[in-house]
Order: sequence, then structure tokens, then C-alpha cells
Amino acid sequence: MIEQHLNACKARVEACLVAQLNQLPRSEVQLADAVAYSLKVGGKRLRPALVYSAAASLRADLTLFPPNLTPLDLAAAAIESIHTYSLVHDDLPAMDNDDLRRGQPTVHRQYDEATAILVGDALQAWAFELLTQIDTLPADKVVAMVKELAQASGPKGMVLGQALDMQATGASESVDYLKQLHSLKTGALIRSALRLGAYCMNAGSKERRVLSAYGDAIGLCFQVVDDILDVTTDSATLGKTAGKDQEADKLTYVKLLGLEGAKAEAQHLCAQAKASVADLPNPQVLVELADYICNRAS
Amino acid sequence: MIEQHLNACKARVEACLVAQLNQLPRSEVQLADAVAYSLKVGGKRLRPALVYSAAASLRADLTLFPPNLTPLDLAAAAIESIHTYSLVHDDLPAMDNDDLRRGQPTVHRQYDEATAILVGDALQAWAFELLTQIDTLPADKVVAMVKELAQASGPKGMVLGQALDMQATGASESVDYLKQLHSLKTGALIRSALRLGAYCMNAGSKERRVLSAYGDAIGLCFQVVDDILDVTTDSATLGKTAGKDQEADKLTYVKLLGLEGAKAEAQHLCAQAKASVADLPNPQVLVELADYICNRAS
Repeated sequence: MIEQHLNACKARVEACLVAQLNQLPRSEVQLADAVAYSLKVGGKRLRPALVYSAAASLRADLTLFPPNLTPLDLAAAAIESIHTYSLVHDDLPAMDNDDLRRGQPTVHRQYDEATAILVGDALQAWAFELLTQIDTLPADKVVAMVKELAQASGPKGMVLGQALDMQATGASESVDYLKQLHSLKTGALIRSALRLGAYCMNAGSKERRVLSAYGDAIGLCFQVVDDILDVTTDSATLGKTAGKDQEADKLTYVKLLGLEGAKAEAQHLCAQAKASVADLPNPQVLVELADYICNRAS
Repeated sequence: MIEQHLNACKARVEACLVAQLNQLPRSEVQLADAVAYSLKVGGKRLRPALVYSAAASLRADLTLFPPNLTPLDLAAAAIESIHTYSLVHDDLPAMDNDDLRRGQPTVHRQYDEATAILVGDALQAWAFELLTQIDTLPADKVVAMVKELAQASGPKGMVLGQALDMQATGASESVDYLKQLHSLKTGALIRSALRLGAYCMNAGSKERRVLSAYGDAIGLCFQVVDDILDVTTDSATLGKTAGKDQEADKLTYVKLLGLEGAKAEAQHLCAQAKASVADLPNPQVLVELADYICNRAS
């Protein structure tokens, strides 16, 4: 059931991404190709799924596959574009220096470093352009969505989290520090995905707050599970190098709480997420998604 | 007269940037400091001046220094933020590998490469956030401004120009190729600055077209003069390494047209720019600005 929902969301956002990529100028240079490459090396498309799922929890009917791009599709594509840019830059030699991403060469390995920098820059601008293509919502909602995404991804959100993360390597910090770091680095965008879905449904601030609380909990849960999988799963299953955090003496939940402590924390966060959305009109898909995130094997 | 105008524009945009920088979270990490550093190493603030000057040409009264930030101030700060991010990333070792920018260490020299990547990423998101803070224009104008800036700076504009530029090094291409390259790499943002000024004045599409034509001409003129100064001026006056283009066998107007040919082209473009705005209500400041750009010594 939840797998089917995730696959449907993935299909929709990928159709939107492909349609929009076709609008990019095909010049003599490989920029558009490299942008397309970065987006194609996609995983579960979790953040787009959160956009659609938030809307479903507010009674959007996702069984209708609309003939035209909807605000949800454009918001989902925008958030995936921001997420992808952050991965492309994060993989750079000066950052995490990763050669593989989901089993494929990272952009700077497939092309070169300069191209990877430009691909990330292009994806970020493109994300905001995608939001401005939403023409079936009131303009003030679109402005609010641009502000939402800019704040979540910029120096008050994701980028600040990246900076905190780089500084944290090797240090022995507290669980609070780690929570703050992940609340920014991955949490801000996850929260934003849910809130963008709410904006698409013209939801009020109460619904946005509820979805933010859910996002906070599943964002942290996602990261705790990531840390658990890094020590319990092999590289082939993960699609990235396992054991890397331990090797780099990276600050993780497993390091701070132990493996069993981390597992208990994941369960606790999952329950918290599910409880927070209980009063929404149709919380079922968000409930299943929380379980999925908590119990995933890769 | 024009110097006074430029100084007034510079003062206004810098006041806006400082006020907005103070809103960034001061965490344990140096991200906000590094962002502020990148913005402080400012030059003439030409692009912000174009925002204000376009508005002046449409009868904005710039002699009133308003107590609150106006749409013009936020648009000027946004465009400077995008311009600054492009310089920070352009200076990286994998790109132009520059140690100095306007006589000061570049961001990756002052801090480190990872910080420079994150500063550029942060500045880009921040630029769009600044636009969404405009609350005295209709929301549909703000959406149009976000779209304008995203298209001008992203994979259809500036970033595509950067990619073309990197590929062009050492090649022997045509003047048309060089014009296309600069029309994207520097022209798109210059044109966008003028159009953002027009949006702030609620101008129609005719005025935006006129200002775009002016921007095309002065954008190219700016670049031709840059190429001329690279061979005729010393590093101290330029505030960057002179002769670098020649050394790198870079494609320039001087290389393609010769020094005298490039000077004639600059004059031609300047005259074209001035002619294009003749019918605007108050073109004087744009006329003087074109002369200033064409005749500058650094």
C-alpha cells in the first residue's frame, strides 16, 4: 500500500522533472545534460512524496492523474531540485568527497568539479523558477511558498545545517547539538516539503503547524535510522559506502546513544510523528509513511 | 553627478544588506560571518545601481531616503546577493582559481573551499528570500520578480553562461559566440537588475523591453571594456590580476577584434544603449551610467 503510494508519487514528480528539463536550452555545452544526470540518479523521492502525502492528509485525491502539471507537481519537483543540488555539492571533494551516489558516479566524477558546482547552482535557481510556474494558486500563496523554500534551504536552514555538520566531524558533542544539526541539515527541507503540500491545498496555519511537527519527528527519525543502517547494513544494500561514519569518527546517534538506544529513539520519534497528525482529515498515508521511514532497510 | 548617484545607490543597498545580514542566525559556526565577508568585499555595486537607475528613469524620486526598506532596496540587495554568490563560486580552485578579489583574499582563501561553496549556496537562497520580503507590491509582481531573477541567474541564464565560458577557454571562436556567452554570463543579470527596477515601479512590458535592450548593450559594453582594461591597466588599479586573460589564452574581444577594434565596439554599444532609452520619462541617469561604464578606468 505505502510502496504503491510512493511509486505513484515518484512517477508523478519524475514526469514533471522530465517535462521541465525539456524546457532547458540545449546548447553546445553539457550543462543541461549534467543537470538531467544529477536528477536521474534519484532514490525514493521521499521529499516529493511528502509534498503529495501532506496534500493527501488534507483530502487531496491523488488517484486522479491530472493531464496538466499541478501546484503539487511543481512543488514536488522544486523540493527535489533543491535536495539534488545539496547532494551534488555535498559530494564534492572539498565537502564529503564521495565518488558514488546510489551506486552511480557522482556528478563531479561523471563530469568534473566545475560542472558539479554549476549543476548545483543551476538546480537551486531552477527550483525557485519551478515554483513561479504555479499559476492556479493565488499569487500570495506562491510568494509564501518561495519564502518557505528559500528559508528552509538557505543560511537559516539546510545550508546552516551543512556548515554545522562539517564542523562537528570528530568532535564529541551532545545529543542536543546533533538534533539541532539534523533539524537544519535534513529536517528543514523535510518540514518544508510537508508545508509546501499544505500551501498547495490552501491549508491554514494550524495545519501547517501540525505538519511541521510531523516533519520534525520523521526528519529526526530518518536520520537516526540512517545512522543505524550505516553500522548494520552493507554497502550494496545501502547504495553508498557503509561504515563511513564510524571510519570518519563522525558524530552519530549510534555513537551517542549506542545501537539499542538509537533504535529506541527511532521508535519514539515514529510514534511522536504519528500522534501529531492524528487529527488531520486523512492521516493514514502519513502514518504509514512514518512506519516506512522508521522500518526501512536501506 | 553620476559618481554621486552611484555612491547614493551603494549606500542604500549596503544599508539594506547589513540590516538583512543581522537577521541571520549567529550560531557557533562561521557561516553568517563568511556570508557577510563575501558581501563586504564589494565593488561599485553596479547591479544594485541599475535597479535604482531603472526606477529613476521611470520617475522614481531617489532623493528621498525612505525610513523603511523599499521594494527597490530589497531587489537591489537580492541582485547583489546573486552576483556575489557567482563571484564566490567562480573564484573556487575548480573554476577560475583566484586568490584575490578586489584586493582581498577570496572566500575560499580567507576561510576554506567547503565554506566558500556553502556561502555561495546560502547567498543564492537568501536572494530569493529577500524578494519575498517585498510586501508593498502586489503579490503577482513579486512572483514575476522571483521568476525574472531565477531565469536570469539559472540554467537558462548566468549559470549557462559560466558553463559556456569554461568551455571557451583556449578555443578560437567567433564574435557571435563571445556575445552569446557574455549575454548570458554577465548580461542576463544586468538585464535582470534593470527589469527588477521596472517591476518595482509597476512598469509595463514596453518599459521592460526598452530597459532590456539598454541592459543588453551596456552588459556587452561592460565586458568589452573589461577585456580592454585587462591588457591596458595594471593589477593595482584593477584590484585583480591584470593580463590574466592573455596569459590563459582566453577568448576576449581584444583577441578577436584587436585593441582598437574593441574600443570602437565599446563606443558603438554605448551609443546603442543611450539611444534605446531616449523615450523613457527620465533617461538622464541611464545615459550617464552608459558613459560611465564605457569610459571607466577600473
